[in-house]
Amino acid sequence: MPKGQPSVVPDDGLTTRQRRSLPLLAVHTGAGKGKSTAAFGLALRAWNQGWPIGVFQFVKSAKWRVGEERALRVLGATGEGGTVAWHKMGEGWSWVQRDIDSSEEAAREGWEQVKRDLAAETYRLYVLDEFTYPMHWGWVDTDEVVEVLRSRPGTQHVVITGRNAPEALVGAADLVTEMTKVKHPMDAGRKGQRGIEW
Amino acid sequence: MPKGQPSVVPDDGLTTRQRRSLPLLAVHTGAGKGKSTAAFGLALRAWNQGWPIGVFQFVKSAKWRVGEERALRVLGATGEGGTVAWHKMGEGWSWVQRDIDSSEEAAREGWEQVKRDLAAETYRLYVLDEFTYPMHWGWVDTDEVVEVLRSRPGTQHVVITGRNAPEALVGAADLVTEMTKVKHPMDAGRKGQRGIEW
Repeated sequence: MPKGQPSVVPDDGLTTRQRRSLPLLAVHTGAGKGKSTAAFGLALRAWNQGWPIGVFQFVKSAKWRVGEERALRVLGATGEGGTVAWHKMGEGWSWVQRDIDSSEEAAREGWEQVKRDLAAETYRLYVLDEFTYPMHWGWVDTDEVVEVLRSRPGTQHVVITGRNAPEALVGAADLVTEMTKVKHPMDAGRKGQRGIEW
Repeated sequence: MPKGQPSVVPDDGLTTRQRRSLPLLAVHTGAGKGKSTAAFGLALRAWNQGWPIGVFQFVKSAKWRVGEERALRVLGATGEGGTVAWHKMGEGWSWVQRDIDSSEEAAREGWEQVKRDLAAETYRLYVLDEFTYPMHWGWVDTDEVVEVLRSRPGTQHVVITGRNAPEALVGAADLVTEMTKVKHPMDAGRKGQRGIEW
């Protein structure tokens, strides 16, 4: 998409340059495909800028995102762009040294680490993949997430993916895209395909 | 998204295995963000499968997609996954040895090369970025595109991005996602940001 002119010039006392470096909170939601895929596409831009990238996968299967994970890990290791840290709930978070009893507990432990990293400004781009679900299910408090994100220091961009994004999160986000399914091969009885679905 | 069960088992005489390797035509359309970004995210999966990837950028600016381009070129050069060929209309297509007079002519030359590559099965994944516009504007004949795609040989996956996807293209596609803008920072007077918009 071309970089357009903004439709409104805000009266916020900021210069265009300052506004350009505002931290962005993006949400990719809806029942269609491309929510996570677009988030990982964004990570390519962040990598190209040399930014440290932190991915937190709030899902349980280790098979999902294997392609994106390997590609981003290889990119991160080239030293030609940003670094990539990839954290998977499905394998137990690396910072948790004890057994985790439930997905609910695992989701909370993930969010606690995100909070620590935001406070420490560990990354410049955070991909919180499927993070809407722990909020939607009440495992993680949405108001707390919104508050922590609103007050995060520095210029840390955050992309949250998943269906059923809570209203308060949508309200706090700068950019919200809804991916709508118009047509899907599973409707015609086709199963997920290697290289396409994972 | 988890790999779900298809809602219908088709009576097409194919096994699940055969259905899994059907060539996919995907369209990312709508006014929201993430259409191209999700297509480049898909390219990460294709790269991980070791597939040759061909990107055709049907746009005129050389600045767009710089992050994705560099990341995918670096990945393609690692030898650890698929190859990446990146073709840009904005710089004149590399296979055209004479001056091109107009965007319309350039778009047609791009499509001619895509046709040659499909016939030769050059790539396993084609990203035809912003290719809906030449069709929408009548520069490239949509019926011809649909016919060429329908009869393409082998297992060549094609992703077409851009607003205003023609109905005939949507009709022919296996997977269509509409990206809908719910909220966009430009509405609040913010301009495109480095690492986020390009």
